[in-house]
Amino acid sequence: MAYSKEYMMRAIETALHNVDNGGGPFGAVVVKDGEVISECGNRVTASNDPTAHAEVLAIREAARKLGKYDLSDCEIYASCEPCPMCLGAIYWAHIGVVYYAGCSDDAKNAGFDDSFIYKELKLEPKYRSVKMLQADSQEGLRVFKKWLDKDDRVEY
Amino acid sequence: MAYSKEYMMRAIETALHNVDNGGGPFGAVVVKDGEVISECGNRVTASNDPTAHAEVLAIREAARKLGKYDLSDCEIYASCEPCPMCLGAIYWAHIGVVYYAGCSDDAKNAGFDDSFIYKELKLEPKYRSVKMLQADSQEGLRVFKKWLDKDDRVEY
Repeated sequence: MAYSKEYMMRAIETALHNVDNGGGPFGAVVVKDGEVISECGNRVTASNDPTAHAEVLAIREAARKLGKYDLSDCEIYASCEPCPMCLGAIYWAHIGVVYYAGCSDDAKNAGFDDSFIYKELKLEPKYRSVKMLQADSQEGLRVFKKWLDKDDRVEY
Repeated sequence: MAYSKEYMMRAIETALHNVDNGGGPFGAVVVKDGEVISECGNRVTASNDPTAHAEVLAIREAARKLGKYDLSDCEIYASCEPCPMCLGAIYWAHIGVVYYAGCSDDAKNAGFDDSFIYKELKLEPKYRSVKMLQADSQEGLRVFKKWLDKDDRVEY
């Protein structure tokens, strides 16, 4: 579907309302076939959940309402450009279109800098600021062997 | 804290158990001061939630149990190398250490390819396979203005 200002304004209004209600300045709306399925604000500090970004919450709620984890028939409108975690969630949900109003630099100017995370993800694990260490790799393979041996596994 | 095989085996056992219970072949454990705070398996297909990766669930549960969104005093053990969404969640939770058993290639061989998402995140938005379009950027700025004008905002 083509861009609709109506849905973007829903995402913006959700974000504004969220700021009034103890949340962060971000909102997201998931739309399917011209219908708003979910609209959520950032609740990280409000719910003590570091993953509670607006896009993640809107994707989770849309998936719950639609009863499926594949949202390839949906689009997402976000008040601001998604961070790497949210963009990862968008890929896993197979959402093909993201409309956003504010950009990453606008978020940075308001104190939310995700450019650091984008830079980190581009690095090899050993060069990241988070310490990443592989250990007991053979034990890790046991899990995948069990998975591949399972006849009724649900692939996605 | 130094690597502990005990916690890695908890993550592996969680993953194995999860496969037996309709989940994906991934497990993660969050540890603080030598105590396991949370241990979760991948429930994407089981709960119709595309964000329900083991690490995201373990971070959410640990944050809920500890009553805080900053998990900088925690470490995470994962049965497999985290995907970009989970690594983003790890950064937002300020977890400083990630131990993992299987690597990204092991996951790929089992049908879970996150290298595509890592590659996509390295690209400028306009070059990604997901269509990303900025629109009504001035409306996006209204949200951040409201945020910065708010005296009692909780920054993170």
